[in-house]
Parts: sequence; C-alpha cells; structure tokens
Amino acid sequence: MSLSANHPLVDGRTSNSPLVTALRGGKPSRRPVWFMRQAGRSLPEYRKLREGISMLDSCLRPDLASEITLQPVRRHDVDAGIFFSDIVIPLKLAGVDVEIVPGVGPVLGSPVRTAADVANLPELTDEALEPIRQAVALTVAELGTTPLIGFAGAPFTLAAYMVEGKPSRDHLGPRTMMHADPETWTALANWAADASGKFLRAQLEAGASAGQLFDSWAGSLGLADYTKFAAPASARALDHVRDLGAPLIHFGTGTSELLVAMRDVGVDVVGVDYRLPLDEANRRLGGSVPLQGNIDPALLSAPWEVLEAHVREVIAAGESAPGHVVNLGHGVPPETDPEILTRVVELIHSIPVAGATEMNS
Amino acid sequence: MSLSANHPLVDGRTSNSPLVTALRGGKPSRRPVWFMRQAGRSLPEYRKLREGISMLDSCLRPDLASEITLQPVRRHDVDAGIFFSDIVIPLKLAGVDVEIVPGVGPVLGSPVRTAADVANLPELTDEALEPIRQAVALTVAELGTTPLIGFAGAPFTLAAYMVEGKPSRDHLGPRTMMHADPETWTALANWAADASGKFLRAQLEAGASAGQLFDSWAGSLGLADYTKFAAPASARALDHVRDLGAPLIHFGTGTSELLVAMRDVGVDVVGVDYRLPLDEANRRLGGSVPLQGNIDPALLSAPWEVLEAHVREVIAAGESAPGHVVNLGHGVPPETDPEILTRVVELIHSIPVAGATEMNS
Repeated sequence: MSLSANHPLVDGRTSNSPLVTALRGGKPSRRPVWFMRQAGRSLPEYRKLREGISMLDSCLRPDLASEITLQPVRRHDVDAGIFFSDIVIPLKLAGVDVEIVPGVGPVLGSPVRTAADVANLPELTDEALEPIRQAVALTVAELGTTPLIGFAGAPFTLAAYMVEGKPSRDHLGPRTMMHADPETWTALANWAADASGKFLRAQLEAGASAGQLFDSWAGSLGLADYTKFAAPASARALDHVRDLGAPLIHFGTGTSELLVAMRDVGVDVVGVDYRLPLDEANRRLGGSVPLQGNIDPALLSAPWEVLEAHVREVIAAGESAPGHVVNLGHGVPPETDPEILTRVVELIHSIPVAGATEMNS
Repeated sequence: MSLSANHPLVDGRTSNSPLVTALRGGKPSRRPVWFMRQAGRSLPEYRKLREGISMLDSCLRPDLASEITLQPVRRHDVDAGIFFSDIVIPLKLAGVDVEIVPGVGPVLGSPVRTAADVANLPELTDEALEPIRQAVALTVAELGTTPLIGFAGAPFTLAAYMVEGKPSRDHLGPRTMMHADPETWTALANWAADASGKFLRAQLEAGASAGQLFDSWAGSLGLADYTKFAAPASARALDHVRDLGAPLIHFGTGTSELLVAMRDVGVDVVGVDYRLPLDEANRRLGGSVPLQGNIDPALLSAPWEVLEAHVREVIAAGESAPGHVVNLGHGVPPETDPEILTRVVELIHSIPVAGATEMNS
C-alpha cells in the first residue's frame, strides 16, 4: 500500500519543504528547525486548553490533539509540527488499562511481567486508530506546506513502562527480564513494536510527512544489550511503515554510545542528544546520515548572548554532517519562556545554509 | 599532616588487604569485592534498625552510622566497608537547612541560585565533623583487617542538589548556571568541593583506608561541560586528602564518555558503570589504572545461572586492566535478596586471581 494521491508527500505540499529536504539529505531553502515537546506545557495557550482535561483525553480527542499540535507551529514559525501524543497511547487504544497520572506519568493497572501477561495483551486494531487518523487529517489540513512529523515511542521504552507498571529511573524490571526470561522479553518487545508501528503507520497514512521513533530510555542500556534486546524490536516497529517511503528519524537521550546501532535499525536521520557535539556524532556515524539536534535545553534559560553563541556552535558543528535539522538535544523544559523559542527559530532561519550538503544531492 | 601511627594503613592492619592491594595495582591474595549501597535498604537488619529513625539521624549518630556500615561486612564477607552516609551530610554539618524526605531525597529549605546565596553559605568547621570521626573510629575498631572506604559526593552532584533544592532528572538548574553565571557556579562548586573534601578527610584521618568520590549526576554532562565545570571542583575536593596517601576511587553513572576526564582529576582507580564492558573501559583509559565494577544490578534478580555467567564475564573483562575491584555497576537495588549478594561474594572469592597484574607490581 502506498500513500494516497492527496497525501502531502505525494501532492508536493511538503515534499520540497525545508524539513523533508533536509531529512532526505538535500539542500533546504532555509535551515529547518523544530523542538521536541514544542507542543505542551511551555505554552500558555496549551495550559489554558488543557484546563480540566486529562492528558489521555487531550491525546485521544482529535480536535484537541490537532489544536495542541498546531499551537507551536503558529507561534514559533517552526518547520514542522510534531504530532501531540504520548508513548502509551497505543497501549490505551489497544485496550490496556493505563492512565497518565499528573506529576507521575503513565501508570498501568497491572504490570506485564510473565509470558501469560504478554500472551493476554490485546491487539491494537486498525479501527481503534481512527481518532489518531482524524487528528492527523485535521492537523495536516491546517498545516498546509508545513510538514507534520508522526510520533511513536520505541518498543524498549514502551515495554519498560509495561514491565515496571510506572516510570522508573533505572528500568531494572525490563533490564532484568531481557536476561532472565529473554523469550518473554522478545514477545513483549515485539508486541510493543507492532503497537508502535501501527500507531506510526496510521499517522503517516493520514498525512504525516515523516516519522520519529522516540526511545526515551535507550540510554539506560549498554551497547550489547541495546543491540541484542532493543534494536531488533525498533527495526520491527519501523518495518510497519517502510513501504510508505516517508523519512524516519530515531532519537533517544543518553545515547552517545548507541548512535550507530540506532541508525542501523534502518532510519534516515539520527537525533543526537545535547551531550555529544554534532561533529563528533557525525564522525561516529561515518558521515552516513543527516543529523537532528542538539541545542542544550539548559541554555534556553541562559542570557540571550550565551544562548545565541551556543546555537551558532551547534549549527557550525552540524555543518560537517550530510544534512542537519536543528532541534533541541532533549525536550523543551516546561518552564521555558516561549518567546525565547520564537527568537531561537528566527536566529536559526537567519543563518544561511552552507553549500556542504550539495555534495550529497 | 600524615596519618597517625595507629591508622590501619600505617600499622599494617589493612595495607596488605586484598582491597588496598588491588587499588594500588598489586596482586591481591583474593579477588576483592564490595557493593555500592551494600549498607542500606536491601538488608532486613538495616530496615529494623532504621525503624522510627530518620535518614539524617542514622547518618549523624555515630553508633548508628557505624552499625549500619558494619552490617553488610558481617553478612556478606565483602572486602571493604563503605562508610554509611549521604551526599548532603556535609551540607547538614555545615548548617545548611536540608532534610532527606522519604521517597523524595534531599530537600533544601532554600535553593542556592545567586552569588549572594553562595556567599551566605556557612563554612563546614572541623568541630562539626566530630560525629563523622567518631563513627569511623567505632567502625574501624570493629572491622579489624577489613578496610573501610570513605564516602563523599562529588561537588557537581552536591551543587546540583543545592541549585535545584531537590532531586531532579535533568539537572537543568545547575547546567544552566554553569553557562549563564559561571562565576557563581564556580564559587558554589568550590564551596561544595571544600565541604566534600573536608568530609572525606575526616573519614580518612579517623581510620578509613581508601576514599571514593561519587558523582551521581556526572552522566548528565557532556564531556566539554564536565571537563570545564565539574572536573576542576572534583580535583579540588581531592586536594583536601592527597597528602594522606590513601588510594582514591572515582565513580559516576552514565559516564562511559567521561572516564578519562574522571581519572584525570587525580585518582588511583576508576569505577565503571554497568553500561560499558571493563575491557572497553580499560582500552579507553589506556590501561593506566585499576578498575572497579561493574556487575549489572539488574542481573541480581535473574536466575542464578544467568547471574553467575554475567559475573564471570565481568571478571574476564576485568582481567585486561591493571587491577580490578569487583563491584556492581550501580548501587544495590533496595529489593535485592541479600542472600544472592552473599552468594555472589562467594563466587567471586572462588575465582583465582590471574597473574596479569604481576606485570605492574
């Protein structure tokens, strides 16, 4: 199955956008920038809209998810929307008992820890994804020539929540299960891969122009465990969408040691967290893919001249790579002044794109 | 000033112990092992002793701190005690308003965020350290030939708590301050360095045979920030104790990218977290120092045969280094079965020490 004739990537609305061009290794007309967690708590219009509405409802009601996705695009003139959702939404849509508890995060009615628990997991059906498709369709209609990036949690991170039953710092439960009961782990990771993959496919089919797999907790794994127990499931998740031809991005925090393995699950672009300079990331990746990142979110609260110098450093370091989408090296902190983000976008757009990437196009 | 004539390192009680020998790069009579957080919540005798007693009291009452330090040595036959304390104890002793809130962690009455806040910090006096010296003296008298390792938090981690005023995941506050107000950051980090250094010196003078600097949050920093904003203060903390000649260990989690910089603050041994195999850590360090680590705590809950195979892998990987003290690659999880830890110690002691380190002695 391929994308429909009126899909933004097919009818040309977004196929030559700065974001899609850069994700494909071409030379964009302006330097593309978006921010992880640009939709959400840093925006007063988001906090107002969310009053009295639960996180899950805000993700599952198409009008709300769409409006929240659009808010930062209107405000900041970023080069992409990122679909507003949560990593556990595919669980919820599949019928798993999960809530997002304010101040805590996702909490499951019962953790998933045994082979029987995994065997009893419900399947995510195509029908259940209808609110997601509706939200994306509403969003894409408003975005026009600005591409929407689809959002999905990587199977390791999703499975880590499922095993712990709640957020944890060290992810001991899933990390134990990998070694103690690798068959159950693989079954769980594959379930999570299929759920995330279907969730991302629904977004891409409904009009998203690219997809990003977020592996929030991948950095808790050493390279050997990541390669053996997480990467195969991430590849499986992406197998659900490869035929659609949309560019794919892969990001996790604390993953300086994992960048090559994260590329090798089969993505077009690797996101780099704030810890590793982009020129060093590009060296580790052998100049093989465009990079996304990696303004340090901590600098968003520094005086403007400090932040500006940092943004210019990030852009200079990114020049070495075969393409660069500017982003933060982690999500927007909730207390960020949104006017600073707008000013950062203006700065980035004011810096001309160097000719380096022409070598690759 | 040097150690007194009846100090365990001077009178010979611990100077030829397996731990001290291995820390100094010699060949120990048996393979030394201890566990980070071996004293604490995994032990029923600890939970019983702590009933109705606050964490701060358990650290500040010499009889309690000593008893808690001794419990795991009695139970597991480990090759060292680690002084039971908390990273914020030097703050408390200096007179800073700090409490350890159960389920949360250290919480300060008022965070330290401005130059004036830093200037107003009280100095940690020698007299205030008396309960620490008493606890160490009591402990060392009981330990006999088993060495005690002194405990201190690294300045970055200590300062991170002080800026945030409480535990945080991303340490944005201190990471912003480094760049936004480097003078205030340096003053704060130096204050923390002096507090930690004096705290460690009190332990070493009172009878500890080695010292470990714990930089719990160092892994939140990229190499450039670590080198510029954290390492100098860690070196300054250790400057307080270098003349004593006790071996020094440096450990932080998520620090695979920082190992060389952590060595270069001036330590004898580098602790490696569970993410990086010891042979790779040794390669990065150019075979320059003995290593400590790095059994994955997640494996402590796996079936014994899986755990045993992992322990043997860790030991085999450690053979490449010029000395190896076996430890976990992070602290003992609270839910660990203590009988498993005892069995791990027996296993490690049953594996003969290879001749590799003789090259260095």
